[in-house]
Amino acid sequence: MANEKKLVEKITARDVDFAQWYTDVVKEAKLCDYSSVKGCLNYLPNGYALWENIKNNLDKRFKETGVQNVYLPVLIPESLLQKEKDHIKGFAPEVAWVTHGGLEELEERCCIRPTSETLFCDYWQKIVKSYRDLPLVWNQWNSVLRWEKTTRPFLRSREFLWQEGHTLHSTAEEARKRCEDMFKIYYDFVTNDLAIPLISGKKTESEKFAGAEDTYTIEAMMHDGKALQSGTSHYFGHSFADAFGIKYLDQENKLHSAYETSWGMSTRIIGAIIMVHGDDSGLVLPPRIAPTQVMVIPIAQHKDGVLAKANEIYKILKDKDIRTKIDISEKTPGYKFSEQEMLGIPIRIEIGPKDIEQNQCVIVRRDTSEKITIKLDEVTEKVKEILELIQKNMYDKAKEFLDSHIYEAKTMDEFKDISAKKIGFVKASWCGDKSCEENIKLETNGFGSRCILENEHLSDKCVYCGKDAKETIIWGKSY
Amino acid sequence: MANEKKLVEKITARDVDFAQWYTDVVKEAKLCDYSSVKGCLNYLPNGYALWENIKNNLDKRFKETGVQNVYLPVLIPESLLQKEKDHIKGFAPEVAWVTHGGLEELEERCCIRPTSETLFCDYWQKIVKSYRDLPLVWNQWNSVLRWEKTTRPFLRSREFLWQEGHTLHSTAEEARKRCEDMFKIYYDFVTNDLAIPLISGKKTESEKFAGAEDTYTIEAMMHDGKALQSGTSHYFGHSFADAFGIKYLDQENKLHSAYETSWGMSTRIIGAIIMVHGDDSGLVLPPRIAPTQVMVIPIAQHKDGVLAKANEIYKILKDKDIRTKIDISEKTPGYKFSEQEMLGIPIRIEIGPKDIEQNQCVIVRRDTSEKITIKLDEVTEKVKEILELIQKNMYDKAKEFLDSHIYEAKTMDEFKDISAKKIGFVKASWCGDKSCEENIKLETNGFGSRCILENEHLSDKCVYCGKDAKETIIWGKSY
Repeated sequence: MANEKKLVEKITARDVDFAQWYTDVVKEAKLCDYSSVKGCLNYLPNGYALWENIKNNLDKRFKETGVQNVYLPVLIPESLLQKEKDHIKGFAPEVAWVTHGGLEELEERCCIRPTSETLFCDYWQKIVKSYRDLPLVWNQWNSVLRWEKTTRPFLRSREFLWQEGHTLHSTAEEARKRCEDMFKIYYDFVTNDLAIPLISGKKTESEKFAGAEDTYTIEAMMHDGKALQSGTSHYFGHSFADAFGIKYLDQENKLHSAYETSWGMSTRIIGAIIMVHGDDSGLVLPPRIAPTQVMVIPIAQHKDGVLAKANEIYKILKDKDIRTKIDISEKTPGYKFSEQEMLGIPIRIEIGPKDIEQNQCVIVRRDTSEKITIKLDEVTEKVKEILELIQKNMYDKAKEFLDSHIYEAKTMDEFKDISAKKIGFVKASWCGDKSCEENIKLETNGFGSRCILENEHLSDKCVYCGKDAKETIIWGKSY
Repeated sequence: MANEKKLVEKITARDVDFAQWYTDVVKEAKLCDYSSVKGCLNYLPNGYALWENIKNNLDKRFKETGVQNVYLPVLIPESLLQKEKDHIKGFAPEVAWVTHGGLEELEERCCIRPTSETLFCDYWQKIVKSYRDLPLVWNQWNSVLRWEKTTRPFLRSREFLWQEGHTLHSTAEEARKRCEDMFKIYYDFVTNDLAIPLISGKKTESEKFAGAEDTYTIEAMMHDGKALQSGTSHYFGHSFADAFGIKYLDQENKLHSAYETSWGMSTRIIGAIIMVHGDDSGLVLPPRIAPTQVMVIPIAQHKDGVLAKANEIYKILKDKDIRTKIDISEKTPGYKFSEQEMLGIPIRIEIGPKDIEQNQCVIVRRDTSEKITIKLDEVTEKVKEILELIQKNMYDKAKEFLDSHIYEAKTMDEFKDISAKKIGFVKASWCGDKSCEENIKLETNGFGSRCILENEHLSDKCVYCGKDAKETIIWGKSY
């Protein structure tokens, strides 16, 4: 039994050093690895399979609302990037520049896209003439590059994978609705399919996306109490349309500005899955998104009939579209258990000679370690049922953690006390002034505004300056 | 009826100016368009949907053989690109160089990947230790960039989309088998699902991929008789493994070189679909890959019950997983027909008041223009049947075209005569000498070697020099 110990020993305990635990899990579960290109990751089969499931699920949801996929270039000429002034200010310091093509220097240098608003707007300006051409509801699955100084797997890397949706509308109302609809899709996907409870709402002025009028965000709480921004949807009004000269003729032949939105979710969300659900044995994956849902592990597999029966179970489940694998390698069962736990596979099925005698097998839940002995003829039904239970339990557990780590502060003394002693989020009222927002962050060791809570009212006074409060804000440290 | 004329008038007749016809079809079917980034394309919804279908189909085939998807960085440090000498020689003149990140100049410049052999090998060198780590059968769906001087939609653009598979094996036999298996997948996919007949085999020494020991190719004949290289699979032996120092310990603890393959298919294949199947009315898409298989068009849609019945047909087909759309816009039926033809949608269903009286509708085949009146209660069954017939007919028609445009030449006089008077391919024997290959191309106005025909023997003598022939070659002009 020496082997299985080794695997668990390879990861630091979660409560001893959360950052090291995270890095260890990413490495031992073989999700991604650093490449020779500084700050860029290799997404390995286990990590990419997770991303493919996320992608397929979201893509289906998008298409049901009329989204069309496209692909625009990886390069943006410098003059295009500069057209919207807030946008260039936000991104210029962190883009990579291409200066030479083949052996020649370029007349105009191009950056590798950090995001593609400018490319979409540039093209739309050319093709949009009339109200008949609207709306345009486009999306692309691609990679973007931002020249970050410090990087961490999935959370912050120079290149990352994402989808970026860009839409153009004839009215502000329609654009606002699209922006909110996509935000709701993110919310629904993350809570239901990733079992991650969320805090959501608009960003404050200073936390908005460069060039946006409104940014909606979903924020998840990691196990160390920090916030991870997990998806954003932006309403631009006609700032980009004006900068790019996108106008359309309405039914009365009058010229109008068009309205734009964009929205994105990235491979960061994999970081959230790890840090919300993972434990000391490794990953814990929500069944709906797990590349493998069930791992069948034969016990004493050299004994008569064991492999045959294990394979039979494997095939039955696979035929019912349950994502199942079987491990018939020469490793010890203990080592196989340990591997299946590290990978976060929701259910393990153990079957050995004694089980076969009794016409049964043992289901082990990854989320609770509970062992459930079931009859072989009910395996499909029980597996389906337990996958649903795991999905629900994972959400409930995370929701309880979130709820029990949100504190209220009506004074800065309370706020500072919480920030010094607790992990989690703080709910506090705010006057809307940027300097109060900045001072709060400075004096609480990093509690920035995560989002505005709509329809909540905690106090009449700003927690910092005591003037009239305009908003209730969720504050937190962030990744 | 003025409108629908306009749409067809927008495209040049195929036999008048094939190149212009191609450009017109790409534009009018809204497959892709030039972007503001010189030589780079915007892949528009219609074109991208086609690529998604190609991708999903191929990806499924890959995964059935054990391929795992990954994603490696978009950037390659210059020192990595230089490790394999043939490889750098092949690609250095055509890569784009990133020299600055943010505001700083990079210590080492990086190119945007033109292909990723070097990145895969660099990583494998770090992780492969023992025979237990092999084989590695990885693939990525990504974009690559090559700084081309002249560009044409889908056929040649600076950035294009593709998949690149990379595999590493412990024995040459296993690597060769993988290389050939992937080549067979391409062959099967293109002939069966794209209805494009092929010529296939190994490339000659001078036409091989930079760094490969063997390159297998599938070559399709466009309607102008030119060849389009549509997919390639490379066997590298241990050239890359040696250049990157990838070694593994075998079961007896001895160190060995590993063997590598790579294989790719790109958005070029969309160019082949257009140029093999298209006609004077626009695209003709093979049913198995068409994003929309059936377009329902109501006739006199304002008359009682027409829209309801058209919608009923639409829903019946959609429920049976036939990719169906309905056009209930205010355009004239004639204009709708013309649009559906331009987009290459395999089947159009017309239904008007008279049809409803008779409990029937009319199916129009895109490939033959044949009109078939059917009873409404047999619509699913007939549509399925006709989609299969179209798929088969498209292949047969293209196969007949291919077969009737391959000529044999035993002397250079014959070869020159054919090349001057005919379009298509020429089959001729060759001594294996590079200078003969070059001279043939020069003296026939561009007939290069496309591939070696295995197990064929046309003549004992090289068509150029008259020395002993080693191979029978298919020669053709190429895109």
